[in-house]
Amino acid sequence: MKSLSRLALLKSRKIVGLMSGTSVDAVDACLAEFEGNGMGMKWRILAFETHPFPAELRKAVLEASEASTGRVDQLCALNFILGEFFAEAALKAVRAAGLKPTQIDLVSSHGQTVHHLPEDRVIAGYSSRSTLQLGEPSVIAERLGVPVVADLRVRDVAAGGLGAPLVPYADRVLFQKHDSAVALQNIGGISNVTLLPPGSSGKELLAFDTGPGNMLIDAVVHDTTMGEHLFDPEGSMAASGQVDRALVERLMEDPFVLAAPPKTAGRENFGREFHRTLSTLALFGRVKGNDLVATVTAFTAESIAENYRRYVVPHWRPDEVIVCGGGSQNAFLMRLLSEKLEGIPLVTIEQRGVPSKAKEALSFALLGNESVCGIPGNVPAATGASRPVVLGKFVP
Amino acid sequence: MKSLSRLALLKSRKIVGLMSGTSVDAVDACLAEFEGNGMGMKWRILAFETHPFPAELRKAVLEASEASTGRVDQLCALNFILGEFFAEAALKAVRAAGLKPTQIDLVSSHGQTVHHLPEDRVIAGYSSRSTLQLGEPSVIAERLGVPVVADLRVRDVAAGGLGAPLVPYADRVLFQKHDSAVALQNIGGISNVTLLPPGSSGKELLAFDTGPGNMLIDAVVHDTTMGEHLFDPEGSMAASGQVDRALVERLMEDPFVLAAPPKTAGRENFGREFHRTLSTLALFGRVKGNDLVATVTAFTAESIAENYRRYVVPHWRPDEVIVCGGGSQNAFLMRLLSEKLEGIPLVTIEQRGVPSKAKEALSFALLGNESVCGIPGNVPAATGASRPVVLGKFVP
Repeated sequence: MKSLSRLALLKSRKIVGLMSGTSVDAVDACLAEFEGNGMGMKWRILAFETHPFPAELRKAVLEASEASTGRVDQLCALNFILGEFFAEAALKAVRAAGLKPTQIDLVSSHGQTVHHLPEDRVIAGYSSRSTLQLGEPSVIAERLGVPVVADLRVRDVAAGGLGAPLVPYADRVLFQKHDSAVALQNIGGISNVTLLPPGSSGKELLAFDTGPGNMLIDAVVHDTTMGEHLFDPEGSMAASGQVDRALVERLMEDPFVLAAPPKTAGRENFGREFHRTLSTLALFGRVKGNDLVATVTAFTAESIAENYRRYVVPHWRPDEVIVCGGGSQNAFLMRLLSEKLEGIPLVTIEQRGVPSKAKEALSFALLGNESVCGIPGNVPAATGASRPVVLGKFVP
Repeated sequence: MKSLSRLALLKSRKIVGLMSGTSVDAVDACLAEFEGNGMGMKWRILAFETHPFPAELRKAVLEASEASTGRVDQLCALNFILGEFFAEAALKAVRAAGLKPTQIDLVSSHGQTVHHLPEDRVIAGYSSRSTLQLGEPSVIAERLGVPVVADLRVRDVAAGGLGAPLVPYADRVLFQKHDSAVALQNIGGISNVTLLPPGSSGKELLAFDTGPGNMLIDAVVHDTTMGEHLFDPEGSMAASGQVDRALVERLMEDPFVLAAPPKTAGRENFGREFHRTLSTLALFGRVKGNDLVATVTAFTAESIAENYRRYVVPHWRPDEVIVCGGGSQNAFLMRLLSEKLEGIPLVTIEQRGVPSKAKEALSFALLGNESVCGIPGNVPAATGASRPVVLGKFVP
């Protein structure tokens, strides 16, 4: 505990944030230096590296994540093996900065989500929401010789929250303005928005998952190209296709997209099962190839815009929308989204000083900075938790 | 982190140790007060309670533990639901002592093992041993408002150990003598031995799982009585049966029983699969009813004794064997074991000042005491780890 309690007393902290999303492409590792805490903290990125999943490991994670195939023995082994893989990712960032692990103060690891149950499950009369992230932090701590904070979602769930989204706290620190409202729109595997009213204390903040991000687009591209492409490069496939309006309208009936926040999505909502339904509908409507890519891209854009129309704008009309995540690289998606946002200007996160790729991992490094100082990192208005709680488990 | 770093500075600590074994009968909660650390620490038990598993929850845990039935969605939910159940168990001990949770300094929770893979698994070229315990500590911390240390096995595995046995450290503190060698024989679901040479520094210590404990006996009793009995009361069923020597000899060929330490067993070794083989052999040899109970009881006793003959006595002949765990209540088993130990005196753990039932939970409270003080709690000679490590993850 000595090395951990020391951390809160340091003038500045070098922290590696590790993040791997639902798309299971790569672990992002962002090494950043933090001074102070809360809204007044200073930060700078020292290195950013991505550590791509080997195909076989990605497959193992995807199998482990589905209720029909995720078995206890694989989960048990995968937890430790992902720990090794995350340790490699952290080391990569440390070395890219020209540093040694001994010069790092903390690793803050999100882990790999393999399941998320936002609805209560009942067993023997006990009921609970739940979420499960793998990537054993003890392995990371042992390989690097650096303390680790990990499993940042579970305490919020224990306090009655959804355990997600957790980025709003970081969004406030990084982007909140005194005089104008800002919306952060992340388009990763899943899409989520954080609305930051001007000078908000966090209570007026609105944050939720809007629905699919790149998850469906990627799955359709994978099918269409017989596995040759894993994503639509800059939206070029969609741009050369025709949007099928009837199919978009049908998809827009999705209950998750229409539901009021708080809400949180995962592979349970837009994974294999949704994809199967989509394939059936597409076959039925004879929508295929780039037309289908264009159609799911339109659905993705419109599902985001519909959530702004229903839930964001009535709460507080943003003066600008800052887009981050892989989806911000999809020009077709960005154009459709801009059209549907009825005059609210779209900018990319780079235009606001943060590298898009590094944003999520930076956010989790920032959350780790707060946790070791005993500062709550959840935003109850975003997660639905009963109170602010200090996030994570500490491994010395 | 404040409340955690404060803990190391306290003159004494009130700690609830929570333990639930492979038999999934009940969570044991031992509230004890500790003064100091290491071999010189003082301890006294303030309360001990068992919190029996509801049948449905037990069934869910057993299903979740088997590779063929343990699915990711159930594991995700069960982790949180076991957290609620463990929190109840801890509260029960706190109240039994006439205290409030705010008067407790720490909960140290072993969790419920749902899988243990002592052999390396390889995924995508990465290989690791692994172990998986459920019972979300964030839920315990949130319900009681008390810091929690949990997941005490994983760091040892990360350091190259088996993650088990972890009781040897506690055994040293509780039972080691300056002038004579002591063996602690635990007969829980699985049986394990800790040999403490006189005045040992821990390096000469020998500790390993010897094989089945009550796990097979309980399974056979359950079958024989059509589910009416879950265990053989004081060994009375076995005592009224006849041991089938041929079947005992056949079972004694089990590779785990004969293997040299370090070795660690679980439901993987003596669970459903072993029980199926046993049933087939019993059917084949026409061994049934109380004769079969007597036979597996004899196998259990002899598998322990065989490990003494092969691995314990050649290392250091114990001056006495202290028996603990449910098996110490089985008079038939104790008599057979005593006969097979060739003159080494057997005593129960109560005769040495520790209530048998409380011993495991007390040991994990004691390990938590060491962890919050930054003192390693594994014994590398017992687990095979490359070095002593501070055990557990901390939830503030």
